[in-house]
Amino acid sequence: MISFALDMLSKGKIKLVKSLSQKKFRDELKLFVAEGTKSVTDIAQHCKCVTLFATQSWLSAHEVKATEIIEVSETEIKSISAQKTPQPVVAIFEQPAFEIDYKEIENGLTLALDTVQDPGNLGTIIRLADWFGIRNIICSVGTADVFNPKTVQATMGAVGRVKIHYVDLPKFLSSIKDNIPVFGTFLDGENVYQKQLPKKGIVVMGNEGNGISSEVSKLITERLLIPNFSVGKETSESLNVAIATAIICSEFRR
Amino acid sequence: MISFALDMLSKGKIKLVKSLSQKKFRDELKLFVAEGTKSVTDIAQHCKCVTLFATQSWLSAHEVKATEIIEVSETEIKSISAQKTPQPVVAIFEQPAFEIDYKEIENGLTLALDTVQDPGNLGTIIRLADWFGIRNIICSVGTADVFNPKTVQATMGAVGRVKIHYVDLPKFLSSIKDNIPVFGTFLDGENVYQKQLPKKGIVVMGNEGNGISSEVSKLITERLLIPNFSVGKETSESLNVAIATAIICSEFRR
Repeated sequence: MISFALDMLSKGKIKLVKSLSQKKFRDELKLFVAEGTKSVTDIAQHCKCVTLFATQSWLSAHEVKATEIIEVSETEIKSISAQKTPQPVVAIFEQPAFEIDYKEIENGLTLALDTVQDPGNLGTIIRLADWFGIRNIICSVGTADVFNPKTVQATMGAVGRVKIHYVDLPKFLSSIKDNIPVFGTFLDGENVYQKQLPKKGIVVMGNEGNGISSEVSKLITERLLIPNFSVGKETSESLNVAIATAIICSEFRR
Repeated sequence: MISFALDMLSKGKIKLVKSLSQKKFRDELKLFVAEGTKSVTDIAQHCKCVTLFATQSWLSAHEVKATEIIEVSETEIKSISAQKTPQPVVAIFEQPAFEIDYKEIENGLTLALDTVQDPGNLGTIIRLADWFGIRNIICSVGTADVFNPKTVQATMGAVGRVKIHYVDLPKFLSSIKDNIPVFGTFLDGENVYQKQLPKKGIVVMGNEGNGISSEVSKLITERLLIPNFSVGKETSESLNVAIATAIICSEFRR
């Protein structure tokens, strides 16, 4: 239902939006913020929109269900936007809560992130997981927060479509590794282009600087390698974690 | 040769480093800035280091050839660092100038970027091009600047190893398209996983929001598609440009 009782932008609301840039307040209130037409309209299909802030012209051209709609001027929206180029719409959503469906995970392809720390990398990984039809991403507790504004922004609306779970990753992998292969990339792994890959599996991607932790490494059952093609020349020693994830997912799905 | 005459950090030097965050000054002075051990040591192997700013402990552990070395305190380096977590080393380099080697391009795999605007995306693409043994990237004039600090940072040292050229892209492609296939990704293209791909070619990647421009589209001789695997479900409509580049390069090289 769309509310037509337009409210004013109060100082309290500005403070609320700003506070949600901090994980502490997001965790406490179970809310998060998204900006821009694509993100807001996509996320509104999966998460409850608590407050929608938008310009008059945006509201006349778009329909988004929200508990509360606040019409703002272009100047006012700058006070709540975290982006360099403020968007005509900013929204507060309720955080979705997903339960882990072990049966679904044991019958499909799942990503596990071992302390991926950059919010942009996490968001890019969620977006590409959505593209490759991956329904679940299992994150170690040290992984970036999915509701960080930079993560939400980088998902381009996919944040509501992929189920993100934060768990004790070694414990989770220990509990499931006898039922499904657990893949990871290592320098001494098998060439991913030459290996026959199954339809089901968990693919672990490691931290930007340190790769997969030693504790998680022990739980990997299949070691993969993305070969470097600058053989004989000095070259990059590694790939960005989102890039490596894309190459691995592409190989599993092709 | 390493200079042992350590200089002081003057206001003029701080101003110079800061000015190089702007393209106008980078173009005028033909200089750029890099930060962090990995970036600085890698780039120093390919580009002339004009000034090296580093802490005493960094200097005692690393050897980088530089015309001028300025020892700075950890507090001082904060005044020149553009990063949230200041690195113990910041360096000013001369911009490398590369001529287009048509023979090399006609005999290998080359990327062409049609107005890729995000500096981080450009840097990530340079890093993965280096990984996949791609020697040249041809950029339209509207593409982000390779010497933007965010680009340099995202290349993780690969900026000196891949030759980046800024050209009138339609003109360049017109001049070369009879000698080498020109690939681009489109919604009506051929499935990249099913197509036999050659060892030689130019792969055009488009702008983050608008894809490949209509002018450049006309010069594409082979239309490719990266299929979406969330068939039947609502999904992401596109991939981040660096992610799409990685998938295409992986298919060409595998």
